[in-house]
Amino acid sequence: MVAQARKVLRHGQLVTPKGVFLGDVVIEGAKIADVVPGGVDEAQLADAEVFDATGCWVYPGFIDAHTHMQCWTGMDWTADSFETGTRAAACGGTTTIVDYATQDKGMTLHQALDEWHKRADGTCTANYAFHMAIADWNDHTREEIADMREAGITSFKTYFAYDHLRLDDAQTMEVLEAIKPFDGILCVHCENGTLVNELQRRVLAEGITGPEGHPLSRPAECEAEAISRLMYLSELTGARVNVVHCSTRLGLEQVRAARERGVRVSLETCPQYLLLDDTRYLEQGEDGFAGAKYVMSPPLRKPTDIAALREAVADGEVDQISTDHCSFNLHGQKDRGRGDFTKIPNGGPGVEHRPALIMTTFEGQLGPMDYLHLLSEGQARVFGMYPRKGALAAGSDADICVWDPSARWTISAANQHQAVDYTTYEGFEAHGRAKLVFVNGTLAVRDGEPTGEKPGRYVAR
Amino acid sequence: MVAQARKVLRHGQLVTPKGVFLGDVVIEGAKIADVVPGGVDEAQLADAEVFDATGCWVYPGFIDAHTHMQCWTGMDWTADSFETGTRAAACGGTTTIVDYATQDKGMTLHQALDEWHKRADGTCTANYAFHMAIADWNDHTREEIADMREAGITSFKTYFAYDHLRLDDAQTMEVLEAIKPFDGILCVHCENGTLVNELQRRVLAEGITGPEGHPLSRPAECEAEAISRLMYLSELTGARVNVVHCSTRLGLEQVRAARERGVRVSLETCPQYLLLDDTRYLEQGEDGFAGAKYVMSPPLRKPTDIAALREAVADGEVDQISTDHCSFNLHGQKDRGRGDFTKIPNGGPGVEHRPALIMTTFEGQLGPMDYLHLLSEGQARVFGMYPRKGALAAGSDADICVWDPSARWTISAANQHQAVDYTTYEGFEAHGRAKLVFVNGTLAVRDGEPTGEKPGRYVAR
Amino acid sequence: MVAQARKVLRHGQLVTPKGVFLGDVVIEGAKIADVVPGGVDEAQLADAEVFDATGCWVYPGFIDAHTHMQCWTGMDWTADSFETGTRAAACGGTTTIVDYATQDKGMTLHQALDEWHKRADGTCTANYAFHMAIADWNDHTREEIADMREAGITSFKTYFAYDHLRLDDAQTMEVLEAIKPFDGILCVHCENGTLVNELQRRVLAEGITGPEGHPLSRPAECEAEAISRLMYLSELTGARVNVVHCSTRLGLEQVRAARERGVRVSLETCPQYLLLDDTRYLEQGEDGFAGAKYVMSPPLRKPTDIAALREAVADGEVDQISTDHCSFNLHGQKDRGRGDFTKIPNGGPGVEHRPALIMTTFEGQLGPMDYLHLLSEGQARVFGMYPRKGALAAGSDADICVWDPSARWTISAANQHQAVDYTTYEGFEAHGRAKLVFVNGTLAVRDGEPTGEKPGRYVAR
Amino acid sequence: MVAQARKVLRHGQLVTPKGVFLGDVVIEGAKIADVVPGGVDEAQLADAEVFDATGCWVYPGFIDAHTHMQCWTGMDWTADSFETGTRAAACGGTTTIVDYATQDKGMTLHQALDEWHKRADGTCTANYAFHMAIADWNDHTREEIADMREAGITSFKTYFAYDHLRLDDAQTMEVLEAIKPFDGILCVHCENGTLVNELQRRVLAEGITGPEGHPLSRPAECEAEAISRLMYLSELTGARVNVVHCSTRLGLEQVRAARERGVRVSLETCPQYLLLDDTRYLEQGEDGFAGAKYVMSPPLRKPTDIAALREAVADGEVDQISTDHCSFNLHGQKDRGRGDFTKIPNGGPGVEHRPALIMTTFEGQLGPMDYLHLLSEGQARVFGMYPRKGALAAGSDADICVWDPSARWTISAANQHQAVDYTTYEGFEAHGRAKLVFVNGTLAVRDGEPTGEKPGRYVAR
Repeated sequence: MVAQARKVLRHGQLVTPKGVFLGDVVIEGAKIADVVPGGVDEAQLADAEVFDATGCWVYPGFIDAHTHMQCWTGMDWTADSFETGTRAAACGGTTTIVDYATQDKGMTLHQALDEWHKRADGTCTANYAFHMAIADWNDHTREEIADMREAGITSFKTYFAYDHLRLDDAQTMEVLEAIKPFDGILCVHCENGTLVNELQRRVLAEGITGPEGHPLSRPAECEAEAISRLMYLSELTGARVNVVHCSTRLGLEQVRAARERGVRVSLETCPQYLLLDDTRYLEQGEDGFAGAKYVMSPPLRKPTDIAALREAVADGEVDQISTDHCSFNLHGQKDRGRGDFTKIPNGGPGVEHRPALIMTTFEGQLGPMDYLHLLSEGQARVFGMYPRKGALAAGSDADICVWDPSARWTISAANQHQAVDYTTYEGFEAHGRAKLVFVNGTLAVRDGEPTGEKPGRYVAR
Repeated sequence: MVAQARKVLRHGQLVTPKGVFLGDVVIEGAKIADVVPGGVDEAQLADAEVFDATGCWVYPGFIDAHTHMQCWTGMDWTADSFETGTRAAACGGTTTIVDYATQDKGMTLHQALDEWHKRADGTCTANYAFHMAIADWNDHTREEIADMREAGITSFKTYFAYDHLRLDDAQTMEVLEAIKPFDGILCVHCENGTLVNELQRRVLAEGITGPEGHPLSRPAECEAEAISRLMYLSELTGARVNVVHCSTRLGLEQVRAARERGVRVSLETCPQYLLLDDTRYLEQGEDGFAGAKYVMSPPLRKPTDIAALREAVADGEVDQISTDHCSFNLHGQKDRGRGDFTKIPNGGPGVEHRPALIMTTFEGQLGPMDYLHLLSEGQARVFGMYPRKGALAAGSDADICVWDPSARWTISAANQHQAVDYTTYEGFEAHGRAKLVFVNGTLAVRDGEPTGEKPGRYVAR
Repeated sequence: MVAQARKVLRHGQLVTPKGVFLGDVVIEGAKIADVVPGGVDEAQLADAEVFDATGCWVYPGFIDAHTHMQCWTGMDWTADSFETGTRAAACGGTTTIVDYATQDKGMTLHQALDEWHKRADGTCTANYAFHMAIADWNDHTREEIADMREAGITSFKTYFAYDHLRLDDAQTMEVLEAIKPFDGILCVHCENGTLVNELQRRVLAEGITGPEGHPLSRPAECEAEAISRLMYLSELTGARVNVVHCSTRLGLEQVRAARERGVRVSLETCPQYLLLDDTRYLEQGEDGFAGAKYVMSPPLRKPTDIAALREAVADGEVDQISTDHCSFNLHGQKDRGRGDFTKIPNGGPGVEHRPALIMTTFEGQLGPMDYLHLLSEGQARVFGMYPRKGALAAGSDADICVWDPSARWTISAANQHQAVDYTTYEGFEAHGRAKLVFVNGTLAVRDGEPTGEKPGRYVAR
Repeated sequence: MVAQARKVLRHGQLVTPKGVFLGDVVIEGAKIADVVPGGVDEAQLADAEVFDATGCWVYPGFIDAHTHMQCWTGMDWTADSFETGTRAAACGGTTTIVDYATQDKGMTLHQALDEWHKRADGTCTANYAFHMAIADWNDHTREEIADMREAGITSFKTYFAYDHLRLDDAQTMEVLEAIKPFDGILCVHCENGTLVNELQRRVLAEGITGPEGHPLSRPAECEAEAISRLMYLSELTGARVNVVHCSTRLGLEQVRAARERGVRVSLETCPQYLLLDDTRYLEQGEDGFAGAKYVMSPPLRKPTDIAALREAVADGEVDQISTDHCSFNLHGQKDRGRGDFTKIPNGGPGVEHRPALIMTTFEGQLGPMDYLHLLSEGQARVFGMYPRKGALAAGSDADICVWDPSARWTISAANQHQAVDYTTYEGFEAHGRAKLVFVNGTLAVRDGEPTGEKPGRYVAR
C-alpha cells in the first residue's frame, strides 16, 4: 500500500531544521531521500512523480501528541474511531498522532496495549504512537513498565482528577521513579480531583445544572494547585514531566517558577485554550443546550488566561500545541447530561483543525519556524521521535504537509472529516490549508480531501 | 415612588459573585429576593411583572465613584445638576454615583454636607453617596470628621493642586491620622500644584494660550511626584488611600512600588485616560476652540500611557474605573478660556457612557466578571457598600442593569442625556447597551431612555 | 494574686509603637497607666514601687503564638505542663502564649476547649490564649465554630500531615469558608502527609532507622507543595491563612508568589529553622541517640534554607517568630524511637529561649523595633490581640519585659526552667536577658528567676 | 612653599586608572611626572628625594565632596575652620575637599563666594573647591549662576528642609533649568521640611525632648519622598542631580527606580549611614546627653537601612562616599539643645576618618580599585575634576596618599586632628592608615601627623 515510486515536490518554501529556503523535496519509498535548495536538475525528474508546491510552505507532517480515539472515558465511547480520527487528522495536515492507551482498574498494561493495537492497526490514514495511561498502580504494573518500553512506549500518563483514574501523590511519585531510569516522561492531567468533586456537589446544590456549571466547578486554582504539586514530585524524583492542556495563567506561573528551579518540565497547551473563553458555556443553540459542546476538562477559561497563554506561546515557553481531541456527539451523547452538567461526557473534537487555527490566530506574530516547533518538531523532540519525525530532512520519514497559506475557507461541521456532529470552531475563517499530505511517502490527502489510502503505521519509540 | 410589585427578570446571563450562569432574578420591593440558576418555576410568575433578559448579561447596577454634580469648581457651576446627571447615569446603566461634596475655605463640613443634600435629595434617578472633600483643615474640621462618619461618609478627599483647595503635606498627614481609627479612606487629587502654577505661567509666557497649552503645563511627572508623596504619607500613618484618576505610566509605577512595600492603596482610572490621547487638544472644530472639550485635570496623555493603563486594567491592578464626570458646556462656559487656557473650566462629561466605552474597548480581552469588578463591585468594596451594592445576590438592593451585548449604536451629543453640549466620545461605535435599568426595584430606564421615575436615594455607608 | 500597687519602671529605653525613646512606664493594677518620655516627676514616685531600668530595653511582653503544652500528640504526653511551660516562658521574657487546643477524632470542639481550660486555668505564670485545632470536620463541628468565636477563639488550625489529625483538601476548604465571615485565620501545618508516609516506609526499608532518617523522609518539597496548596485554597475562599513554622526556601518562595497574587497570608517561622541545620541529626552524644533531640516536624533544614529564612526576616517578610514548643524528654520519651525514627515523639522545647536566641542571632542586623515586631507585636496583630497585647502604651495590659542587652550567659539544660531534660541550644552564648518580667502588672520574673507568682490569665480575643 | 624637588615613591602597590601594579611614582613640582610599572632605574634616583612605599597601596589623594567648614548653620558656627578641617582631612589621606559655600537669605552668590574665599585662602593643608548653596532664589541670583561658573563652580545645592534655606518645588525646578545649559549638577538635601516641622512639634508635644526625639521626627519616608520629588524634577528638566547623604533603603529604591527611567542622578552616602544605627541616640555618657553627638540630618537609621546601603555600595550603585563633615562640640554647642532636641546644632565630624572607616568596614568585600572609585575617582568625575584629581597618572596633580594596610590603631577624640571634642567612632579599631600624604607635590602628612605645610589651593573647575 505504501507508494514505491520516486516523487519530487517542486518549488516549495521548505521549512527545515536549518531554516527556510526555496527548493525541492525528493521522496523515495517511505523516506525523504533529499532536500535540495534551489531545486533538483530537470534530468532528475525523468522517472519521478512531480508535485507542484509553488507558493506553498512545505512542512514535515504535523504531530498531535494528545488524542483519545475510540476510547471509553467512563461515561461513553468517543465518537471518533482510529479510522475516522486519523483520516480527519491527515486532512488537516497532521501525519502522526500520539494516542493515550488507557489502563482500566483491574486491567494490565499489556491488556491495554493489546486492546489499543487491535483498535488501530490497519485502519489508520496517519501514523500513531501510544502513551500509556496508568490507572491501577501496583507491583504488577510496576513490572510491566519495562515491557512497555520494549514495546516502544516511553511516555506515560497519570491523573490527579477523575475518581476512576486518579492515583494519589505517593503512587504518582512511584510512577515517576519507575520511568526515571530510561528517562521516560510522565504526562499528567493536572486538576485537584478532591476539590472538583466537592465543588461539583455545591454548584449542583445551588441549582446550577446546565453547562455553565462546569467552569464554576473547576476554577483555575484547581489546575494551578495540581501543577504545583506535580512540579514538586518531579523535583523530588528528578523525572521528566509534561503538563498537558495547560489552560490558566496561574498554572503557567507555576511552570515558570519550577523551570527557574531547574525542574525538567515540558509544557503543552491546546487551541481551545488559546481561542475560546468561558462565555461559550452560555450558548443556547436550538435546544438550549449548545453550551455542552464546550464541556471538556480543564474547562474554557477567562480572556486574561487566553492572553497569558498566547504570550507564553509567543515567548517560546510552550513546547507544543496538541488538541486533547476526544469527541462526543452533541446529540445522543453530550445531551445525556441535560439537567446535570457532571453527566456530560467530557471532551471535544479538534485533531483536524489545529494547524489552520494556530496559523490563523498567530498570523503577523509568529512565522513558519515557530509553527514547525509548535506543531511538529516540539512533539517529536519531547516524545522521542526526532528526527525520524518532525524534520524535513534526508533520511526522515516521508511525512510531509504542503501548506497553502493563501487558501481561505470556513471551518464548519458541514465540511469536516471528524466523525462528530459539531465543531467548536463553527464559522472560523481560516487562513491557510493543507494542500498535499504525504504519510510515509504515500499521498494521503489532496486539496483537503482524503485519497483513501491508509498508510499510517505504528510508531515504536 | 418605589415599585412594590414582584418582578422577575427571565432567562438572563447572570453575573453574580459566584460566577456567571443562566437564570432568573426575582425582585421584591426594593430588594433582590432571589437569584435562581436555571430559572424559577412557571407557577411563580403568576403575580409577577416579567421582563425578558434573553441574550443579555444581567449585572448589578454599575457604580461611578467619582462625579461632581451641581458644583461650583472655582470658575463656574457644572452643567449637570444631580437631576440631569443621575438620569444620564441611569441611562447608561449606572445606578449609584458617589459624588464629591466639597467644603470651601471658611465653610464647615456640616454646611457642605447640608448643601449637597439640598441639591440632591428628591431629584435623583440613580442613587447617590458622598465623599467629603476637605479644603479647610483646622481643629473644628478635625472634630467634624466623626460626625461625617455618623452621617454615612467614610471616604474623604484632599487636593495637592488648585490653590483654593489644596492642603500642604503636614495637613494631609493630619487628615490621614484623623480617619485612620475607623479605617476611612482618603481620595487624593495627585498633581503637584506648585509646579503646575509655575508651568502654566511659563507656557503662557511663551505665547501658548490655546487648549494645547493645558497638557504642557501638567506633565506626567507632576502626577507621579504627587502620587509618590501620597504613598509615603499613607506609609507614615498606616491609613488607606485611593489614587483617583490615575493617568500616567509613571504614576502607575509609583503605585506598584508602594504596593510592594505594603502600602494600602486602591487605584482608580477613568475612560478618558484609557481611550483618548493628547493629540485631541489640537482639534479645531468650527470655531478653532474644540480642543477645550478635553481640558480636564489631569490632562489626556500619551499613547504609551494609555497602553500602560490598559495593561494595568487587564492585569487586575486597577480597582475600579470611574469617570470624574464634571461637565461644562463648550459654548458659554469652556469658551470663556479662549485666549488663556488656564481660564477654561476643568472637566468633562462621562457618567452616561462609561459602561459602553469600557466594554467595547476591552472586547475580546476582558469578560463579564472583569466588568463586574471594574464597574461595580470594585467601587462597592473600596467604598464600603458591598454587598448591599455591587452584588447580584439575594438581599442586595435591587439595582440591576440588563445589558444587551448585541446592541450597536453611536455615541453622540445628539442622543445623550447628559445636560451638556458635547461629548468627548462623539462618533464612538459602541458595542452593547443598557436595555433595562432598575434602581431600588423600580424600572428607571428602558431601551436607553428614562422612564421618568426618580427612585434614587442617599446611600449612607 | 494580681498586684494592686502603683509601679514605676524608671530610666528605660522604651520600645513603643511610636518609636524608641528614654522614659518611664507607670503601671497601675494590671494595666499600663502611662508611658512618659523623659520620665515622671520625682513627686510621682512617692507612693510607688520603683524599678530601675537604666541601660535596659523596655519591651511589651513577648508573645509566643505557637506552643503545645500538656498535650497528647499521638505518641506521648508533652513534658511541659501549662504550669512549667508558662513559667519557663516568663523566665525568658514571654508573657503570653497562644497554645493549640486540639480536638481528637470523635471529640467536639467544646470538649477540647473545656479540657484545655481545665489544664491551664489557675496554673499559669504567663497569659494564655488558644487556637483551636480541628481534626474531625463534620456538620456538628461546623456549627461549633460560632461558639468558639464567642469563647474568644478566632484562630484555628488544620493539618495536611499526621494521619490522626489531617483533613483532606475539600474539608480544609470548608473550614476556610466557615471562618471567613468573621475574618478568622486558619493556621496550617504544611507538609504533604501522603508523601511523608510513603517516604518514611522507604527510608526504613533502606535500613535507615536512626534520627538521620527523619529529614530524609520529609524533604523540602513536601513542605513547599503543601504551602502552595494552601495558598490556592485561600485564594479560592478569600479567607486568611497563617503558614506556621515555615522552614524552607522553597516554601518561602510559594508564600512570596502568593502574596504577589494578593493572597492574605501571614508567615511564621521558628528559632530552630533560623539557627540549626540538619547535620544535627548525626549527633551521637553518650548513647548514640542524641540526634533524636532534633526530631521535630518539619525537620531541621539545609544552611541555604537558613540563609533564605534569615534574609526573609531581615526583609520584613516574616510576620512573627514563635517556637512550636512541644517538649519531650530525651530519656524515657524520645528514646522509645530507638530503632525506628518514626516512633520518636515529634517536637522540641524552645518557649524559654526564643527572645535571647533571636536578639543574639540578628545582632548588628536588626534593631529593637524589629524585635518588637517579630517577637510581640506581629503575634498580637495577626491573632487579634493588638493593642491590648504587643504594645507598650497607656491602656494596654501591663505585660512588660525589661531586657538587659549587656547580660552574657550560656543556655543550658542545667539552668533552664523548661521541664525537659535537654535543650537544642546547649552551649549557646546569649547576648541579653530578661531582667524583670511583669504579667498583668505583677512581677513574675526577676533576674531570670521566677518570683513564684502566677498572674497568667486566659486571653479571650 | 610648594616643594620644588623631584620626588620618587618607590616600590608601592599603585592604584591607577589602568589597574593595580607594583612600581614607582615620580613627582616633579606639583605634578605627577611619571607612573612607572616595575620601578624607575636606579640612575634616576640620583637627584631625587626618595620615599619608600613598600607594602603600601599608593592612591591618588582621597576627595571628600561634602564638607561644611567654618560655617554658620543657623544655630552656631561649626567647630572646624578651614585650617583645622583641611589639616585633619590630610591626616586621614584626604587631599581635596569640596565645601558648601552657602548663600544666606538677602546675600548674593558673589558675596557668599567672596566670604568663603576669605575664610579658606592661605590657611589650607588640603585643596578645596566649592559647591554653591542657594537659599535665596530670585532674578539676581539667576544671573549670578553664569558668574559662578566662570569662577570655577559647576555644582550647586538646594534644600527641601530647614526653613532658612529651603526653596519650593518651582524654585528648585528653576535652578535646575539655570544650570542645565552648562551641564551643571545640583546637590539636594532631601528631606520633606513641611513634614519634619510638624513631626518635631508632635514629638516635643509628647514630651520627648532628648536626642532620641531627633530620629522620630525625621522618619525614612521624609527622605524617600523628597528623593522621589527630586527625581521627577530632574526628569522634567533633564538636569543632573546628586542625592547627598542618602541614608535609607526607601530612598535608595527611589534612586534605583529613577535610574531605570533614565534619570541622570548620582548617589552619595556617608560613613555614618554605613556604620552607625539609631540606637546611638540612647547613649547616656557622663551627663546623660551623649546621644546629642549623633544629631545630624538625616538622622542615623535602622540596621536594615545600613544593610541596604552597604549592599548598594558593594553593587556599585553608590558613586561616592563623602562625610557631610559639620562639626560642633558636644560641650558648649550641642548641649545648648538639652531639653529640646530641635535646638541641638545638626551635624558631626568625619573628614579625618572616612578612608580608614570605609576600608576597615568593607575589608574582605571590596578591594583597592573599589576604594579608588568610592573615595576619590567618583568625586572627581561627578564634580568635574577628573583626571586632574582622582587619578594616579602622569600629568595629574601630585595629590597622593600612601596607605599602609597593615597599620592597626584606634580612633579616638584623644588622637584626632579635628578641632572638636568628640568623634562618633570612639574606640573603632581601624585597619590601615595614611602613611605619607602629598598635596600638590608637597609632603603634608607623615605617619599620621601633619608636617606643618599648607600646600592646599583652590580648585577651580
